Amino acid sequence: MRENDFLRWINERAGSHTRVPLGIGDDMAAVKISGGIALLKIDQCLDRVHFDLRRHTAQQAATKAVNRCLSDCAAMACRPAAILISLALPREGPGSGEASAQHIFLACQAAAAKFDCPLVGGDTALWDQRLAITVAALGAAASRYLTRGGAKPGDTLFVSGALGGSILGRHLTFTPRIELAEKILAKAGDGLHAMMDLSDGLAQDVPRMMAASGTGAEVHTGQLPIHPDAEKLSAQDGIPAGLHALADGEDYELLFALDPEAVPEIVNLSDVPLSAIGTVTAEKTLALIDDSGNRHPWPRAGWEHRTQP
Amino acid sequence: MRENDFLRWINERAGSHTRVPLGIGDDMAAVKISGGIALLKIDQCLDRVHFDLRRHTAQQAATKAVNRCLSDCAAMACRPAAILISLALPREGPGSGEASAQHIFLACQAAAAKFDCPLVGGDTALWDQRLAITVAALGAAASRYLTRGGAKPGDTLFVSGALGGSILGRHLTFTPRIELAEKILAKAGDGLHAMMDLSDGLAQDVPRMMAASGTGAEVHTGQLPIHPDAEKLSAQDGIPAGLHALADGEDYELLFALDPEAVPEIVNLSDVPLSAIGTVTAEKTLALIDDSGNRHPWPRAGWEHRTQP
Repeated sequence: MRENDFLRWINERAGSHTRVPLGIGDDMAAVKISGGIALLKIDQCLDRVHFDLRRHTAQQAATKAVNRCLSDCAAMACRPAAILISLALPREGPGSGEASAQHIFLACQAAAAKFDCPLVGGDTALWDQRLAITVAALGAAASRYLTRGGAKPGDTLFVSGALGGSILGRHLTFTPRIELAEKILAKAGDGLHAMMDLSDGLAQDVPRMMAASGTGAEVHTGQLPIHPDAEKLSAQDGIPAGLHALADGEDYELLFALDPEAVPEIVNLSDVPLSAIGTVTAEKTLALIDDSGNRHPWPRAGWEHRTQP
Repeated sequence: MRENDFLRWINERAGSHTRVPLGIGDDMAAVKISGGIALLKIDQCLDRVHFDLRRHTAQQAATKAVNRCLSDCAAMACRPAAILISLALPREGPGSGEASAQHIFLACQAAAAKFDCPLVGGDTALWDQRLAITVAALGAAASRYLTRGGAKPGDTLFVSGALGGSILGRHLTFTPRIELAEKILAKAGDGLHAMMDLSDGLAQDVPRMMAASGTGAEVHTGQLPIHPDAEKLSAQDGIPAGLHALADGEDYELLFALDPEAVPEIVNLSDVPLSAIGTVTAEKTLALIDDSGNRHPWPRAGWEHRTQP
């Protein structure tokens, strides 16, 4: 079973509810409660799937688990209001013992505290299996929240930061782009049409945004911001750095669709570079355009949670 | 490490936040978001800890996982507004395979739908470890939410249903007391002072409510509603049924403290029996009173998540 197949199967059965303006399929769900909207997310990090306690510390794992969830808050351009954590703690081996549990709790608390986000609840249980850290986040939208579904033909597609090669270490140490997303929304206002975070790589995540928006996209390979880690990985494995930038997962950068008129608003907005990588199209196809203007089919590659880092 | 020790350690480090009127330590946390209060809970069910796929189906496990979380909503006398689920799915063995994942999802969705609660988000990953189902719930309070901390000296302590022996099967099939809690709150109004659900057994959960309330309690052993399953278990293991009712976990019934003046309001409220089992005291001690009026020390027993069902 592939994760995407199961997600597709779930989406078809998700149903609708008057209380739920945004359900399964976006970075967070939106639920109406008395007088407000609660944005919600759950996300897990598993030993030897999302981290590896033979090489990484429990604190690194915990920090990643929280920051992945906070990155989804960034994707909605909302502030994290609270997190909860659930720990399945191994009785023996990596991650076992009271000190380890305490380190995990403190690392989760510290990661959230960087965004003034309190850890308000948790659940712990011991078992004779590997460490699992599950994080739920509550987000509070400022004026509005951003979805994947608002991209419009003619929009410019942007990514933050630089992409590829996160497996060399950045997948554990990234900064959730909460403040950046907030700034982009504040500056671009209604010109900001759609946003998501890049968790599975551009090659998979661009199609998701376009499918949600009912649009297509042209992405210019020459404009992809390639991370030095992608170059480093390329030197090791011979796969072009540009393909790493396109297909590697766990960048946790922002992908957003902006009205061209709003583009000047976000120039020099932040120390984090913002790169225009392509254009949203009315035709529902996806294409890569090289520097000579030649069109290439969309790569099928992309990171699914089937392999271990 | 015992779960209670870790929870105590966490409580000491939880800190406070202006956004959080109720943090770690109650059945749910309360968080202020624009114009409202979000009640939040996370809870996990692990194979061979909370269920056993050698004997139970994946659907049973999923139903239990959701209902445990909904039982916490009942404990706050709130309605579940939405749930999210995170599934760590085994690659092989019990609970593996696409059909199993689909059954789990549908069972979670169905369990929540019984309370008009939509499943709004999820996360799935495959690993070569056992099944873990983590559920997060968002609750919406009607007029107010109930905590463990409001019991007052002189209050009558009540439990719903009958207690003990849930291990014989009820731990998988119980009904979260959401509607009952709502009715009690509606009828008793301000006379309802404190409420929680019985997850670890009266012997552990009464002290928790009293500690949160800064009170003590006297519980009359002769007034404990003993479930037929407790009698059945007693016949098997020779432990008195009353001790099973007191110390067994996973009853998922309500424990609540009621102003004596409000007691007449809840008579014949529901098909679920409500039993007055004791009195809240100003003196911060706990005692069992037998039918002859003799005082006995509080039993240390109670179910912690160290052992398998």
